Amino acid sequence: MRRAQYGWVTPENMALFTDMYELTMADSYLRHGMDQWATFDLFIRHLPPQRAFLLNAGLEPVVHYLLHMRFTQEAIEYLREQGIFSDAFLSYLRTFRFTGDVWAMPEGTVFFPGEPVLRVSAPRIQAQILETALLNITNAYVTFASKAARVVLAAQGRAVADFSPRRDHGMDAALKVARAAYIAGCAATSNVLAGHLFGIPITGTMAHSYVMSFPTELDAFRAYAADYPNNAVLLIDTYDTIQGAKHAIIVARELRARGYELRGVRIDSGDLVALSREVRRLLDEAGFPHVQIFLSGDLDEYRIRDLLAAGAVADAFGVGTRMGTSADAPYVGGVYKLVEDETGLKIKLSTGKLTLPGRKQVYRSYEDGRMRYDVIALADEPPPEGTVPLLREIIRKGELVADLPTLSEIRERAAREMRALPDPLREIDVSYQDTYPVRISAKLRRLTEAVQAHVKRSEMDAK
Amino acid sequence: MRRAQYGWVTPENMALFTDMYELTMADSYLRHGMDQWATFDLFIRHLPPQRAFLLNAGLEPVVHYLLHMRFTQEAIEYLREQGIFSDAFLSYLRTFRFTGDVWAMPEGTVFFPGEPVLRVSAPRIQAQILETALLNITNAYVTFASKAARVVLAAQGRAVADFSPRRDHGMDAALKVARAAYIAGCAATSNVLAGHLFGIPITGTMAHSYVMSFPTELDAFRAYAADYPNNAVLLIDTYDTIQGAKHAIIVARELRARGYELRGVRIDSGDLVALSREVRRLLDEAGFPHVQIFLSGDLDEYRIRDLLAAGAVADAFGVGTRMGTSADAPYVGGVYKLVEDETGLKIKLSTGKLTLPGRKQVYRSYEDGRMRYDVIALADEPPPEGTVPLLREIIRKGELVADLPTLSEIRERAAREMRALPDPLREIDVSYQDTYPVRISAKLRRLTEAVQAHVKRSEMDAK
Repeated sequence: MRRAQYGWVTPENMALFTDMYELTMADSYLRHGMDQWATFDLFIRHLPPQRAFLLNAGLEPVVHYLLHMRFTQEAIEYLREQGIFSDAFLSYLRTFRFTGDVWAMPEGTVFFPGEPVLRVSAPRIQAQILETALLNITNAYVTFASKAARVVLAAQGRAVADFSPRRDHGMDAALKVARAAYIAGCAATSNVLAGHLFGIPITGTMAHSYVMSFPTELDAFRAYAADYPNNAVLLIDTYDTIQGAKHAIIVARELRARGYELRGVRIDSGDLVALSREVRRLLDEAGFPHVQIFLSGDLDEYRIRDLLAAGAVADAFGVGTRMGTSADAPYVGGVYKLVEDETGLKIKLSTGKLTLPGRKQVYRSYEDGRMRYDVIALADEPPPEGTVPLLREIIRKGELVADLPTLSEIRERAAREMRALPDPLREIDVSYQDTYPVRISAKLRRLTEAVQAHVKRSEMDAK
Repeated sequence: MRRAQYGWVTPENMALFTDMYELTMADSYLRHGMDQWATFDLFIRHLPPQRAFLLNAGLEPVVHYLLHMRFTQEAIEYLREQGIFSDAFLSYLRTFRFTGDVWAMPEGTVFFPGEPVLRVSAPRIQAQILETALLNITNAYVTFASKAARVVLAAQGRAVADFSPRRDHGMDAALKVARAAYIAGCAATSNVLAGHLFGIPITGTMAHSYVMSFPTELDAFRAYAADYPNNAVLLIDTYDTIQGAKHAIIVARELRARGYELRGVRIDSGDLVALSREVRRLLDEAGFPHVQIFLSGDLDEYRIRDLLAAGAVADAFGVGTRMGTSADAPYVGGVYKLVEDETGLKIKLSTGKLTLPGRKQVYRSYEDGRMRYDVIALADEPPPEGTVPLLREIIRKGELVADLPTLSEIRERAAREMRALPDPLREIDVSYQDTYPVRISAKLRRLTEAVQAHVKRSEMDAK
């Protein structure tokens, strides 16, 4: 049978989005009667290069996945065809639904390596099957939000628009980028579907091909201004940017004579520092100080910082490829680790890969509205004095028990969090990644050492 | 109204996956009666760093998009709410369907910068609205396929499995990675949904958490071998890799006594060179020379090359994060440029961004089964002697006119193409990116110069 070679993830088939080994392990657990509750932490071990903090995003998609994933008959038939799964397991999958507990940091929360951003307690088989999707969703969203936060910081209050859809890793990735970037403080996206699905403001100007489609640049500008007299942003670098600015001024005068004001001009290539200053001067001299200058073209946080430091004049930036692919650090290494099961606390001892055992909470201490330090502690310890807990109960026994915030509320949380960052963490060049103190509570540290010693002893005994 | 904060791209809403400016430009073209046929080329301007060639993928998804994209009533209502589109345009969208022509290189074709990999001729408004989706799909697939091809080359005939789902840019990106990696020569994926949707072989072993879920490592190995006696690959590095190998040998003996053979062991951390050699020695001495060694853990083409050069022993590699995010070059800069309209040939003159005008074909010359050079020529020129054309007619007046190949056929084409690469292009370190000659036909070069001169004169006249 020839299968169609395009594919869509849907609420109906998303349960099959899992690594094969999750299912073979799950079947094995079922055969061996090992479906007692277990707890897994989702956390990021290390900061990626050039990141001083991480911004959480993706929780509502995670919640949707957990509440709605089901194995359809078609999915089960596909698994049966593999010839390795037990009938008991295939039956088990037929009625599968998530019945566990989830604690998580809200979307828009700043967090740091080692801190559990999501904690799942559930029958072991469930917790295992979920691993791949939870990691995939969280890793992608955190990668995008953490990158966009840096671009927003670099723009120093100027508007940033997400122009990345054509270069993101697929249409779905572009939706995630648009949402994560908006959470991180971007003002808008060019992605119309993201606007429709999420309620993000959408924006756009014109392309070079539009200008080239008219006999002259001035004809193109006049046509566009006639069609969008309140919203025209003219792309002035198709042929010669300074000449383009002069054409834009002609059109701005014509618009004003009709009672409208040109909204802006966009420069997408060339020496953006020199050109933006000269264009600003031309616009100001011609009596158009309110016409905005949009800069775009291979921008990211480094380039925006350098442009502004060199005196570029800009009201807004259109940022695409490098933000949407998080080009300088295209992944965060989120992991999902067993920390407790019915036999006790668990840790992983592989070389360089220590895990903190037990069900944990993360506490944050603030002073004068700035973050001072975080404490990772056991969930049943009393909270360290003067701190606030970051993990919240989201799902209890498979039921949503939290009010999920609106996108605006998430975005406001992210803005508050970014204002509370210590100054060194707001720098674009990350000179010392461990600036921010993440402490381990004394009780958790003692417990970790005890479990380590115990695991080593058990393994010795087993040899 | 609170919108749900998870989003799905579907065949019903994918038409809205477009940059806002495509729609504002399209409306403007409609108002100005500018819907004559125009031709756009999709091509990649430059090789990304560390790439010596590009591998085409994504055509069948592009074709599906072109044949099935429609604007639903809901989509049109969303656009109407923006308050800037004309009623005529919203009516136009209601009956929108693609009626143009598409020529493209088949999936699995090696190609180079400057060569049109896809050519769209259509009424200008259609061609404009499609731009974002065509670029998004092609850029993503080409990025993934070109990366995976390098990993496959580095493995020198050993099997490579895609283990990337947990780190890819969303579930949909992971589907694309799995399919692109399979096209490029990977043997399998851990992504069960990709297996189901595309028919790719699925594979998997076990996780550290599985081993930790049993009282001892040996208990875990025995349980898994009992459940999957024909398919067991045991993960031996949870506690101590050498001890793990000894436990695996115990289980291999027990399996053999029951008439089965252990399939393999996996090492995911530590000094993979030393450990793989020692584990191989232990397995061989114990009488298990056919038990395979799988290596994984932060692998990519560089690391695989270095491991093999240093004498690591491996039958297969599990490659995840860095392949799935194309970490060293997470995007290709595909662009979509107007090259011809009813007024004649078109080019873009912005600084450093030359476009070749006109409808073109790409020809390839082979000698002794190896690629020698490519020629970009006008579509109506006679083919250069001894060359084969790479662009094929796929869609004519909105109807599919090509037989789309199966996934196996695409994969075979890619394998043939990679065998035909000149040796320097098969190197993992790309020392000189312009190794492969891409020529411009004399007629196309003369025409480009003539159009350049004409555009410059017109702009002068317009000043």
